[in-house]
Amino acid sequence: MPATPKEFLDFVDNNADAFIKKLSDAVSIKSVSGDASYRSEVFKMSDWISQQFKDVGVEIQQVDLGKHIMDGQELQLPKAVLGRLGNDPNKKTVLVYGHFDVQPANLSDGWNTDPFTLTVQPNGQLVGRGSSDDKGPVLGWLNTLQYHYDNKKELPVNFRCCFEGMEENGSEGLDELVERESKPGDGSTSDNYWLNTRTPVLTYGLRGLAYYKLNVTGPARDLHSGVFGRTVHEPMTDLIRLMSTLVDVNGKILIPGVDDMVMTADVEERKLYDVLDYSISDVEASAGAPIALSSDKVEVLMGRMRMPSLSLHGIEGAFYGPGAKTVIPAKVSGKFSIRLVPPQTPENVLPLVKAHVESEFAKLGSKNKFELEELHGGKPWVTDINHWNFQAAKAATKAIYNKEPDMTREGGSIPVTLTFAEALGVNVLLLPMGRGDDGAHSTNEKLDRSNYIEGTKLLGTYLYEVGAINTK
Amino acid sequence: MPATPKEFLDFVDNNADAFIKKLSDAVSIKSVSGDASYRSEVFKMSDWISQQFKDVGVEIQQVDLGKHIMDGQELQLPKAVLGRLGNDPNKKTVLVYGHFDVQPANLSDGWNTDPFTLTVQPNGQLVGRGSSDDKGPVLGWLNTLQYHYDNKKELPVNFRCCFEGMEENGSEGLDELVERESKPGDGSTSDNYWLNTRTPVLTYGLRGLAYYKLNVTGPARDLHSGVFGRTVHEPMTDLIRLMSTLVDVNGKILIPGVDDMVMTADVEERKLYDVLDYSISDVEASAGAPIALSSDKVEVLMGRMRMPSLSLHGIEGAFYGPGAKTVIPAKVSGKFSIRLVPPQTPENVLPLVKAHVESEFAKLGSKNKFELEELHGGKPWVTDINHWNFQAAKAATKAIYNKEPDMTREGGSIPVTLTFAEALGVNVLLLPMGRGDDGAHSTNEKLDRSNYIEGTKLLGTYLYEVGAINTK
Repeated sequence: MPATPKEFLDFVDNNADAFIKKLSDAVSIKSVSGDASYRSEVFKMSDWISQQFKDVGVEIQQVDLGKHIMDGQELQLPKAVLGRLGNDPNKKTVLVYGHFDVQPANLSDGWNTDPFTLTVQPNGQLVGRGSSDDKGPVLGWLNTLQYHYDNKKELPVNFRCCFEGMEENGSEGLDELVERESKPGDGSTSDNYWLNTRTPVLTYGLRGLAYYKLNVTGPARDLHSGVFGRTVHEPMTDLIRLMSTLVDVNGKILIPGVDDMVMTADVEERKLYDVLDYSISDVEASAGAPIALSSDKVEVLMGRMRMPSLSLHGIEGAFYGPGAKTVIPAKVSGKFSIRLVPPQTPENVLPLVKAHVESEFAKLGSKNKFELEELHGGKPWVTDINHWNFQAAKAATKAIYNKEPDMTREGGSIPVTLTFAEALGVNVLLLPMGRGDDGAHSTNEKLDRSNYIEGTKLLGTYLYEVGAINTK
Repeated sequence: MPATPKEFLDFVDNNADAFIKKLSDAVSIKSVSGDASYRSEVFKMSDWISQQFKDVGVEIQQVDLGKHIMDGQELQLPKAVLGRLGNDPNKKTVLVYGHFDVQPANLSDGWNTDPFTLTVQPNGQLVGRGSSDDKGPVLGWLNTLQYHYDNKKELPVNFRCCFEGMEENGSEGLDELVERESKPGDGSTSDNYWLNTRTPVLTYGLRGLAYYKLNVTGPARDLHSGVFGRTVHEPMTDLIRLMSTLVDVNGKILIPGVDDMVMTADVEERKLYDVLDYSISDVEASAGAPIALSSDKVEVLMGRMRMPSLSLHGIEGAFYGPGAKTVIPAKVSGKFSIRLVPPQTPENVLPLVKAHVESEFAKLGSKNKFELEELHGGKPWVTDINHWNFQAAKAATKAIYNKEPDMTREGGSIPVTLTFAEALGVNVLLLPMGRGDDGAHSTNEKLDRSNYIEGTKLLGTYLYEVGAINTK
């Protein structure tokens, strides 16, 4: 006997076009949190989301998170949106997290269509910035509530939500909010993805993040390489050599001690990865090229889920445009980050990074100046998959997709997950809506129509399964 | 008995303010050749220069150089400006080269004042993009002709000029023009600088240039470092390792064979550098920091003048903005260039570079794709300093500055110098107007008022000295 009313599932099918229209409205608001010039659009998105949830009966509070400094400017943070619906002591309380800000996107980055116009492709893909990360999933919850509001049905749980507008930029201000407002509840977020394009997943772990800047400063201003080439120490030469000591071509982290903090997986643990519906060709299809680090599926999955990784993102201050410029840049900052796994934390990794880069810079013997700067960071998170919260989500997945979900740890970081887990002391679950090839932070980000519609059903069914457990 | 009439020198002093006003007009035209969006300003500058020289009696021809491709667009090249004044078979013919385009400049790059508004500082510095490179020197010739036009005086030589608008972007189209229009004459250009702020120089050599792009391509699009970190080969990791094999922190070129092409300087040759009015503190004052590669003046001067240098300019395709973005860039291009000295040429250095980077990339064992791309290049140039052309310039320098000029080779590249030398078979001379600390390709570019005014006198005096040699 399914816990979910058939009327709900039919409602979602019958309103699919209206739900897509609503996603299109959401995508059209350019809520890029990492670029000061779009800040007013993030404000607009906070208001829009608030109104949408009010319209389906949710009591909404927009919370001022104060100001922050970005790109040298003091800026108002976008207001977080807190919502509540239902307060029945006999029901379980589900707290839903999501975010309404997006990554930057420009047509010139390589998008095939305008990133802020949701484009429905003939194959059913809904293409647009934020479609999958994270506006589609947030609207999945809204669509679910719409059914209950329109049909005057009670929700099977007490519903709480927390949506923020700074997730793509370090979730500034949110930790303080969650700690201040902490109320019991069980968390759920849909800000992640299936491993592939076939099998739904439930996620019980996330990597943490430590982001660093290597600043090398030499001359007082940019120099002409004709006039100064081979007369002075060039900051770019120093920086490139320093960056080359961090990670090898096969992903091994060369900073002494960092990889060593993580225990080697035993045979039992390797089995957890072996059973997942995932192949090397999935990775390579998703990356769009045959560039997997190994032909061993377990190695590649562990590389993503239970090993730290180090990526070199770029250089600030150097020449980055097309064409040929013969500049010796005066001040360059190399950006890299390490994805962390337990027992790593930004705090226990920093001294290793610092010791390594300082020793490597000293070895160079350059007269330029060097400093390491730590930007934002977050701890990794792993939780108990035997909690009833996971049982409800498993049952919901089976009901909608007729499949056992893969139980995964994710390679990415959602620092607020840990905040919820630690500040609220609740079991947190990641219940993704999108597929592994959605291209969340990339060009031509998409959400498949079926994932949006079936995913809406999944979220609603999860609430019913939680409600059902309540009465068992 | 000086060859130069005192009336000319007085004229320059009396008209100094008008000359500065004219330089201000020239600087206000944003003739940035390397940015497609400023192309119409380069056209405007070609017209403006043409009109100025017509106004002092020069017969002007604006020559269409066709089209080129830049940043993926087909663009019209700015017209070159050819001028002639005088055709007396009993006089020597001097051909003057200069350029009216400039490097990019934005207030946000770190300028203290608007780069396209010439600002006269209390210390006499004329600050603005192009003030020293190369609008000031071009106007120096104009100012000289103004005297002769206003006072109906004949020039002591036949005057020819060739001004182009693509110098900062590879002088596209100019080689063909010079070869097509080649006429006898003796060349002179003022597109370079004193070694320091004290002693005038004459320049008899320039380094060449070979500019390269290392393209590493991996995934089909940018990836999220959380999802893909430690699962795929990252193009940035490969590129950084590759770039780290090119040059060491002390400027030694690590590409086998490149440094070896250049003969070691013997005791006699070292003396040429030892006599120059130049110290380590000049380099460091000019760079704005104590970062000279050596405390031996001769080593540093040879590093600039008679040794090749390799500079890493930047990376196209990676993250370059402020803040923290956790991207794995899909396609990255490392830019570097080598300044060449005889007997190096772009042609004989290319195979060494190619062999090295291909072998280093192969060693990495990455599944990403790599290719070396060669952008523009130019041969180095060294000429005979015993030619009468140099004797005239030396005499002019002594007359104006009361000093023997330093005889230098320059670290930079002016490929067209070689074109003139080779296509016209004439002796070419570089007669700089600006000082070593002008910041030609940098922020807050300046030309000292005294260098502009005395430099104008120097250029005129040089013409008289050439004329005087004619009758000896």
